[in-house]
Amino acid sequence: MSDNNNTSFEARRALEAHRDKIKPRHLRELFAQDASRVSTLSLELPGLLLDYSRQRVTDETLTLLTRLAEECDLRGWIERMFAGAEINNTERRSALHTLLRQQAGAPLNDGLRERFDAVTAMRQRIRTFANAVRGGEWRGVGGEAITDVINIGIGGSHLGPQMATAALASPTDAGPRVHFLANVDPALSADMLADLDPATTLVIVVSKTFTTQETLANARTVRQWWLEATGESDALSRHFVAVTANPDKAAEFGIPGDNIFEFWDWVGGRYSMWSAVGLAIALGVGPERFEALLAGAHRMDRHFAETPLERNLPVVLGLLEVWNHDFLDFATRAVIPYRDSLRFLPAYLQQLEMESNGKRVQRDGSPVAWQTQPVVWGNVGTNGQHAFFQMLHQGTQIVPLDFIVAFGDDTGNRRQQDMLVANCLAQAQALAFGRTQDETRKMLDDSPDADRLAPHQTFPGNRPSSVLALDRLDAETLGMLVALYEHKVFVTSCIWGINPFDQMGVELGKTLTGRILKGMAGEGVGEPATDALIERYKRINSMGY
Amino acid sequence: MSDNNNTSFEARRALEAHRDKIKPRHLRELFAQDASRVSTLSLELPGLLLDYSRQRVTDETLTLLTRLAEECDLRGWIERMFAGAEINNTERRSALHTLLRQQAGAPLNDGLRERFDAVTAMRQRIRTFANAVRGGEWRGVGGEAITDVINIGIGGSHLGPQMATAALASPTDAGPRVHFLANVDPALSADMLADLDPATTLVIVVSKTFTTQETLANARTVRQWWLEATGESDALSRHFVAVTANPDKAAEFGIPGDNIFEFWDWVGGRYSMWSAVGLAIALGVGPERFEALLAGAHRMDRHFAETPLERNLPVVLGLLEVWNHDFLDFATRAVIPYRDSLRFLPAYLQQLEMESNGKRVQRDGSPVAWQTQPVVWGNVGTNGQHAFFQMLHQGTQIVPLDFIVAFGDDTGNRRQQDMLVANCLAQAQALAFGRTQDETRKMLDDSPDADRLAPHQTFPGNRPSSVLALDRLDAETLGMLVALYEHKVFVTSCIWGINPFDQMGVELGKTLTGRILKGMAGEGVGEPATDALIERYKRINSMGY
Repeated sequence: MSDNNNTSFEARRALEAHRDKIKPRHLRELFAQDASRVSTLSLELPGLLLDYSRQRVTDETLTLLTRLAEECDLRGWIERMFAGAEINNTERRSALHTLLRQQAGAPLNDGLRERFDAVTAMRQRIRTFANAVRGGEWRGVGGEAITDVINIGIGGSHLGPQMATAALASPTDAGPRVHFLANVDPALSADMLADLDPATTLVIVVSKTFTTQETLANARTVRQWWLEATGESDALSRHFVAVTANPDKAAEFGIPGDNIFEFWDWVGGRYSMWSAVGLAIALGVGPERFEALLAGAHRMDRHFAETPLERNLPVVLGLLEVWNHDFLDFATRAVIPYRDSLRFLPAYLQQLEMESNGKRVQRDGSPVAWQTQPVVWGNVGTNGQHAFFQMLHQGTQIVPLDFIVAFGDDTGNRRQQDMLVANCLAQAQALAFGRTQDETRKMLDDSPDADRLAPHQTFPGNRPSSVLALDRLDAETLGMLVALYEHKVFVTSCIWGINPFDQMGVELGKTLTGRILKGMAGEGVGEPATDALIERYKRINSMGY
Repeated sequence: MSDNNNTSFEARRALEAHRDKIKPRHLRELFAQDASRVSTLSLELPGLLLDYSRQRVTDETLTLLTRLAEECDLRGWIERMFAGAEINNTERRSALHTLLRQQAGAPLNDGLRERFDAVTAMRQRIRTFANAVRGGEWRGVGGEAITDVINIGIGGSHLGPQMATAALASPTDAGPRVHFLANVDPALSADMLADLDPATTLVIVVSKTFTTQETLANARTVRQWWLEATGESDALSRHFVAVTANPDKAAEFGIPGDNIFEFWDWVGGRYSMWSAVGLAIALGVGPERFEALLAGAHRMDRHFAETPLERNLPVVLGLLEVWNHDFLDFATRAVIPYRDSLRFLPAYLQQLEMESNGKRVQRDGSPVAWQTQPVVWGNVGTNGQHAFFQMLHQGTQIVPLDFIVAFGDDTGNRRQQDMLVANCLAQAQALAFGRTQDETRKMLDDSPDADRLAPHQTFPGNRPSSVLALDRLDAETLGMLVALYEHKVFVTSCIWGINPFDQMGVELGKTLTGRILKGMAGEGVGEPATDALIERYKRINSMGY
């Protein structure tokens, strides 16, 4: 069953016909014709509002898209995911990130009890360890408390913990500083270690397989730094812990069993921040907030599992993506959080979405007959307004946007909070409705340059966006938000007929890297363009090979 | 003349016919048919190599693209820019960022002598001030040296200084730490100020107009923090300086004339890091390296001004963009620096490129008949490989890439430097050549799952990239690199017929922000979707308006 192809051509044909009617219409017109769209085209959960009234859709569009979802058996796929079926068909695994935030007493498939017990036990270990480090009971080699944590990991072992730690950090929190060492670039570790004291630094090595090239290279470099500085190899266990699904490899590296936090092969790397991979979050912002993050994600899980498709937030968000990308042909989507502490969210979503759905074959290996994942990109507002927004307003390419904004003012600086939120709303409005050339002419009426300048100051509008408004940015709401995007990715994967839980497209680069490393030490790799660069690299570093 | 339209339809037609021949051909085939492309499709300046052999072009493509550039009078436009003509036609200004890095003794139009004298004097002031602060002669209110600098600015007053300071920072440098305060988000300043000592903090307020909403709001917040902490309003001049083209406004804010560093209306914000806007760079990494940055940019300027189009790096880079975007229809371009310290380069280029060329009308206001600026996005390698590269290899959408790599090993950690560079070369090779389904079947030969898995592990290849290889990442090479991109943007603007030096697309959002701020305090703005969100915002913050 998991190999089933998506053959929903009937709903697609209806949507194509509908698209031909909608595409020429301007959002000004859609709003003029149906004032109720502000309320009908929005969905709410306590603490979170999705306003998609500025998307180029009508009620009918959503009805037709929902039919497409039904034809793709989305409801069945959702059930299979929560039940632990092996929906990651290429790797024959479940995808049970939802189990990682399962709450006691909530509905659970009987077959998952044992795994849930393991999850619960691990959650307890994380809490105990984080409290010990943050409370100062866990001591370093010289008897001092931990002041700094280095999270060594890349991809899913980096982006989630980094994003959540930055989002939830508070200047008044007394926990350790958390640093993220991902890139294999040796200058990064050198810069980071120059500022740290080995006696008060805790190192977490995070790798699902414990074979990730960058992570092991960085772990070795940091271990060497630590050993050279302290000379205390016996005390390594007070400074190095591992998070992995491959504890044997972590033990080989020299990390004692008590310091190994496990996760499982039914957790994909980019879905893993809810597992022990989130240890850095618990250390950085406290286990209470880490657990609130889980609880928020669980609330979204229940909503996703239990709500009819047409009122289901992840489903609607996913269907809008399919509409914008496959039917209106917009090649990218921008994510713009109006909250500086969400600055790592665009990079997090890039992995979550593009690594999951950036594929060209269906579950059974046959090529897709449509476009899959768009490019996801973005940066925080208001910064983006002073950078790339020019193109969003007046470029020749239309970019749909997700605006993410938190309304609650946490700082007491209400004047700036008003500005921040007003800027977000203004951008959504300007992009949707624009300003016609006639309106611009009128505005410039008393300028002698009006005729000359009007075309340059005209805004075509009709550029769609959604507004995701959080009541406030706290751990629980962040959990809801991230789970919303996770499930949205699952929704689009079902429409596109692909398996979002493998990442076979990263393998060839790894293979070639190994060959090139050998080629650098020898006679190249036999591909002339690569060999020319290897030669140059060797020359510049005057190698003696 | 500056209002001339681009009417180069003849060369475009030839390119369209050529495109139909090239598009079906695979890079494997192009390499097999012409082994010399590794050398013919590359260009070099001392310290910098552009290898575009993995672009989907032949010598003929470049010949036809060069003809397009000639028909667009690119040579004439380059001359007019360097001569100081008012090529920013909508605003009737010159675009003289090249004058900011002009070197004594180099060719210079006589009409620019006076402005160059002002540039030289300002360069001297920056050097003197930076040396005083870095050397500890400049003292704060309590008699202590400056340990921290806050650069308050957004857009061009943020992205360039941030990018260059991070790129050139050295852990052994004894200069002050530089912090960047751009976003109006009140939580950002609150977090930043919590860690700083007002007595040893220097604040630079950077705004071309000195009316930028975010910058003034943040400047007021920081000034209030400083005054409340020190109570020494007389000593403000030892802690606050301004960089602006509007010194009167800076004086109104309370910054004394001696602390105002001017730049000029012939410098666009996103082209301004070479001016006093780069003060934070000089403070952070030293005036010597700031001046080496200018010298490097000047080298690229001379190359751009003096080299025939077909051997001219910015020209070729620009023509490749036109080819990929207008003829091969690739909607985006990714920039992937394999150097963690270049992590802010993608955001810098987003502004430089998308704010310059994200336009839909030509110089005379008539609509363009082609696509202008693609979306520019990216992140550092190797991080990106563990995030969005899945989609680059196996997605349905092709994304051309700029790989940027620095070969010289600065850290002595050669093992990791080898890995970093090998990863970059491996990605370029894998994307270009891929792995066919037959090759994949062979590779999987002994696996019982070979038939099932081969389609998922097949790589179509033919995904184009350029490699920009720096001999090493130092100030001079960084200057060359940034000037290369600046001029590349100018090249594409000439082909597309647009003025890259205004940004009129940011105005409507500013206007609406003002209206919404009033609407928040009153009865809304009369647009139902915006008003619904204003209501919710007020409710959540329990406003008493």
